[in-house]
Amino acid sequence: MSKSYRVAILGATGAVGTELLELLLSRDFPLSELKLLASPRSAGNSLRFGGEQLTVEAVGDRSFDGVDLVLASAGGSTSKQWAHKAVAAGAVVVDNSSAFRMDPQVPLVVPEVNPEAVVNHQGIIANPNCTTILMNVAVWPLYQVQPLRRIVVSTYQSASGAGARAMEEVKTQARAILQGETPQAEIFPYPLAFNLFPHNSPINDLGYCEEEMKMINETRKIFGDDKLRVSATCVRVPVLRAHSEAINLEFEQPFDVAKARDVLSQAPGVKLVEDWQANYFPMPIDATGCDPVLVGRIRQDLSHPCGLELWLCGDQVRKGAALNAVQIAELLVSKDLL
Amino acid sequence: MSKSYRVAILGATGAVGTELLELLLSRDFPLSELKLLASPRSAGNSLRFGGEQLTVEAVGDRSFDGVDLVLASAGGSTSKQWAHKAVAAGAVVVDNSSAFRMDPQVPLVVPEVNPEAVVNHQGIIANPNCTTILMNVAVWPLYQVQPLRRIVVSTYQSASGAGARAMEEVKTQARAILQGETPQAEIFPYPLAFNLFPHNSPINDLGYCEEEMKMINETRKIFGDDKLRVSATCVRVPVLRAHSEAINLEFEQPFDVAKARDVLSQAPGVKLVEDWQANYFPMPIDATGCDPVLVGRIRQDLSHPCGLELWLCGDQVRKGAALNAVQIAELLVSKDLL
Repeated sequence: MSKSYRVAILGATGAVGTELLELLLSRDFPLSELKLLASPRSAGNSLRFGGEQLTVEAVGDRSFDGVDLVLASAGGSTSKQWAHKAVAAGAVVVDNSSAFRMDPQVPLVVPEVNPEAVVNHQGIIANPNCTTILMNVAVWPLYQVQPLRRIVVSTYQSASGAGARAMEEVKTQARAILQGETPQAEIFPYPLAFNLFPHNSPINDLGYCEEEMKMINETRKIFGDDKLRVSATCVRVPVLRAHSEAINLEFEQPFDVAKARDVLSQAPGVKLVEDWQANYFPMPIDATGCDPVLVGRIRQDLSHPCGLELWLCGDQVRKGAALNAVQIAELLVSKDLL
Repeated sequence: MSKSYRVAILGATGAVGTELLELLLSRDFPLSELKLLASPRSAGNSLRFGGEQLTVEAVGDRSFDGVDLVLASAGGSTSKQWAHKAVAAGAVVVDNSSAFRMDPQVPLVVPEVNPEAVVNHQGIIANPNCTTILMNVAVWPLYQVQPLRRIVVSTYQSASGAGARAMEEVKTQARAILQGETPQAEIFPYPLAFNLFPHNSPINDLGYCEEEMKMINETRKIFGDDKLRVSATCVRVPVLRAHSEAINLEFEQPFDVAKARDVLSQAPGVKLVEDWQANYFPMPIDATGCDPVLVGRIRQDLSHPCGLELWLCGDQVRKGAALNAVQIAELLVSKDLL
């Protein structure tokens, strides 16, 4: 008989948490028990899991007793507070926050890219940033074919990256604007409906925001390539869910477009979406709820003989967060590391 | 007494046409007569110009008799049909369509960049594509300081680029989505509200759409630099008005960020918008109705020692179209070329 596991979701009531629930069910994860944990504020709520109603418990010192796996998606400070306690209680933590991603002791894993990194985990495995995951799934297959010198990426990030309340805020703002009223911004610093702005994360001395530095540093760690040169411009756009990215790749040698297309058409986690006749390429509305990263518009960079341009959309809540975490959990199961 | 001119607006009822009217008035263009021309469908409408109501006439063979200047914004096929007739009648045509932009006989002018190009006009002067104008105003001042090797640009283009009806379509789609209905797309090929997609212009054999090729070819012509390497990814976003661009510049030598900021803070047509503490940079809602191109987030490119990143927003209807055309007209007046 195959093994089954006692799993806890920490941050079960958030946008990523509810997606984790759906994925554990639909992907038939070998559960023997599922525990929903959240802040005391959300405790007592109940969430549907298949035919059952599960009650959300307030996370506390005894929450992780007997738990094999914690899927954490409650933000960095909650992860910092609880992850080591969960590990001390014997659980493995797959953490969706940025708290441990750059910790040299913590594997940072995109299963399509560096599955082997899970092997030496010491209790915590980090799930990368959403934009990083989507980019890495698309770029890694090409990187394996030919040395990559440089990535220049511009993002088009949806409201879902800031959570369920941010998605509601954009809708409320849109309603106000359509009624001729002034939109209010609470979650975001500025109105996002019918507008856009550079990503609202803290900015470092070089003028890069945290989101951009995540794309740069996490990609290097996941690819295991400290010399990979990456520059990023991250932008919030008034899309509800699913991020898009315009990616410029500079290789050491020219990379044939047909070859790139062939490589990506067979790459795990990638779906090629290119109808040149119909001018139909990846769009957020098509990526929403979709597992693979949609990639298209693979073109020779007209400004550089060794350059390739590509365009992608991916569901930020799904492959950008919850799905990648569940894939890491599945990897741990398959390697008997839980 | 200073001279005044008989001016006709061809395409007076469109989004750019009505902006042309406003600019001729607010900038006190030396008019002796203003004639509004449009297709027979729009003839008979009346438009306000200061204290007057002007009636729109159907464009015809005698429309340009006695006219000194035609500001044309009725699309490429209309320009092809009427521009040479207007020139034959003695007028100078400033054409906002793409019909003549790459014609070697036709100057393609951004007044902040290549004002001298108007001098040898042969009746027609072309107004560049909106995204090109905005990029050129921001990049030219840097290009003058140091040789530029390469531009990689990603755009975030508003609905206004497809006209007033496209702006209405986005609002109608947003209303439908907020009411739980399925949005309909007529002007655009796909729903744009809460979505985005690569620019919907015809695609060439290399996979570049017309909009992207305009940015590449027009920039070379305006800069007078056939060797300038440019690659572009053009994307429609659900913003009503004002385009944004993430621009990566690769120079021959490192370009000091403080120097770039200093250059751009004094550049004509540019307004530097950078509040690093408040994470406040150019946004479409601030660029709307604004004359200068808002530029900010000037950063060292972390992936290249000679690279600079910058971010801009500009009103696509105004500096991206009508304002640039009126500036060309003012240039013709100042050089006594009308």
